[in-house]
Amino acid sequence: MIILAADIGGTTCKLGVLSEELTILHKWEIPTQTGQEGERILRDIYESFKKNAAHKHYDMDEVLGIGLGVPGPVDFDKGTVNGAINLNWSGVKHVKDEFEKLSGKPVFIDNDANVATLGEKFKGAGQNEANVVCLTLGTGVGGGIIANNELVHGHNGSGGELGHFKVDQKERFQCNCGLKGCLETVASATGVINLTYHYYKELQFKTSLEEAIQAKEVQAKMVFDAAKDGDEFATYVIRKVASHLAYAISVISVMTNPKYIIIGGGVSKAGHFLIQHIETEYQKMTFKPALKGTQIVTAELGNDAGMIGAAGLIKQYVK
Amino acid sequence: MIILAADIGGTTCKLGVLSEELTILHKWEIPTQTGQEGERILRDIYESFKKNAAHKHYDMDEVLGIGLGVPGPVDFDKGTVNGAINLNWSGVKHVKDEFEKLSGKPVFIDNDANVATLGEKFKGAGQNEANVVCLTLGTGVGGGIIANNELVHGHNGSGGELGHFKVDQKERFQCNCGLKGCLETVASATGVINLTYHYYKELQFKTSLEEAIQAKEVQAKMVFDAAKDGDEFATYVIRKVASHLAYAISVISVMTNPKYIIIGGGVSKAGHFLIQHIETEYQKMTFKPALKGTQIVTAELGNDAGMIGAAGLIKQYVK
Repeated sequence: MIILAADIGGTTCKLGVLSEELTILHKWEIPTQTGQEGERILRDIYESFKKNAAHKHYDMDEVLGIGLGVPGPVDFDKGTVNGAINLNWSGVKHVKDEFEKLSGKPVFIDNDANVATLGEKFKGAGQNEANVVCLTLGTGVGGGIIANNELVHGHNGSGGELGHFKVDQKERFQCNCGLKGCLETVASATGVINLTYHYYKELQFKTSLEEAIQAKEVQAKMVFDAAKDGDEFATYVIRKVASHLAYAISVISVMTNPKYIIIGGGVSKAGHFLIQHIETEYQKMTFKPALKGTQIVTAELGNDAGMIGAAGLIKQYVK
Repeated sequence: MIILAADIGGTTCKLGVLSEELTILHKWEIPTQTGQEGERILRDIYESFKKNAAHKHYDMDEVLGIGLGVPGPVDFDKGTVNGAINLNWSGVKHVKDEFEKLSGKPVFIDNDANVATLGEKFKGAGQNEANVVCLTLGTGVGGGIIANNELVHGHNGSGGELGHFKVDQKERFQCNCGLKGCLETVASATGVINLTYHYYKELQFKTSLEEAIQAKEVQAKMVFDAAKDGDEFATYVIRKVASHLAYAISVISVMTNPKYIIIGGGVSKAGHFLIQHIETEYQKMTFKPALKGTQIVTAELGNDAGMIGAAGLIKQYVK
């Protein structure tokens, strides 16, 4: 049997055929057509699956199920998406039902952060452990929690919404969610930029970033690069980012107590440098018994995490 | 079939015979003999089960399993307890194995906070919801997390250790765990006392508690009583306690996103008064989607929660 999976993004959809063991047998991309309220997206994916099946000599009868990762708020039990801005979907869209009608196969959907977490758990940095948490640091901060081998959705779907964990008690920066102080405002790419402007104004450090700061053209990567080159101000900013992440992780450690805390997303490409600072702070502030054997690691699957995790939904929920 | 359960405490053990639906058919207590390194405790419980079975005409053949709640750090998978100070158990004690040998029945054990949470989930304020969190405010703060219908133990048993959630960023008070700033230092009975002395010194409020403060004889109940009587200083302190709890609960809401957040333990007897203050702060600081349908409630089962939850382990894990 095989599993079909799609990681739906605002620009492209990553599609794949996977084995029941979640090995990618074949993968490709199609553009996401967001015109006409994104009404073609699901049909395009289905057509592409069919075409590829024929072309690669897969039999649709062999398909165990189809997993979809969606960038928006998913009601996992109902299989609906409530307003996916990047796809131009407004209102409640019955994605599971629609795709089951199209394909005649069992379909499971989840949000992009959750499927990426499931992917890393099964085939990546999560080493198939029962308790794993993933923090995806991109423009925002996405999160996913796996406890007792299952994704934690919670009672209204806000389980694992780690980007909105309030870590900045001073509430310095506005979050898209309407509140202030969310992890996203200090630990995403946007967060790195927020803190750079903030501390430059406050501390008047000398820094190689000065020109970019004055021109209001700072990007997160510039700050990481400067820090790696030994720029003191940039290092100070990254330490602050790391410290907020370490605090969130220290709390996660006494909540669901994951074995692996996986840092992914664009910001995580700072890699060892960022992890090292997080690790140092984390060790200091965490309940001692919870530290034992817990590891902070970087994601391993890159862009494949979502597709593998979407297929993982089928592995997990289709019996 | 019936389930036997014991909630083992430092002074007494609460024993019970329960139906498979977790209805208490019969309950009683025996003293906890902590002499000789507490080596008689398990045998005493087993003997008492046998005696009562005979007396009440239960047949030991009808016993599906035996659940035990223990005040100490439990390794759930191994069924061991690593140092239960109140029972005089030192080192690693193989409670599950010992009790299975004594009884010939399947035995499951968990710590007191977890079994209380399971009890409240199945038969109390948790309304049998799949996602429930319990905070027990006593001398310390105990916690239990249920996600997807299962207790979250985590990879090294520190799951749900909510007493050690660092909420006091100013790190004003020392915790028994060796760190500062834990929820336990500001939201337990001890926490109420800590904050009373702290703010009295800092703010020099007029208060009916003055005499007790000067004599260093403040007790948590006195502070709650004074607040109920309209004492401004006491109200200020309780609001601070509530605010720390609200913060912890707001983070829990974006982590495992429980439907019911259950406040139990001695401090919760302040009841509506405390819950109201928590609720107000919680509404202000929580990610909006996570608020929907989430309820902060007081525990309902009192002293029976642990015994019912210990029996619940059998309902859940013995098939």
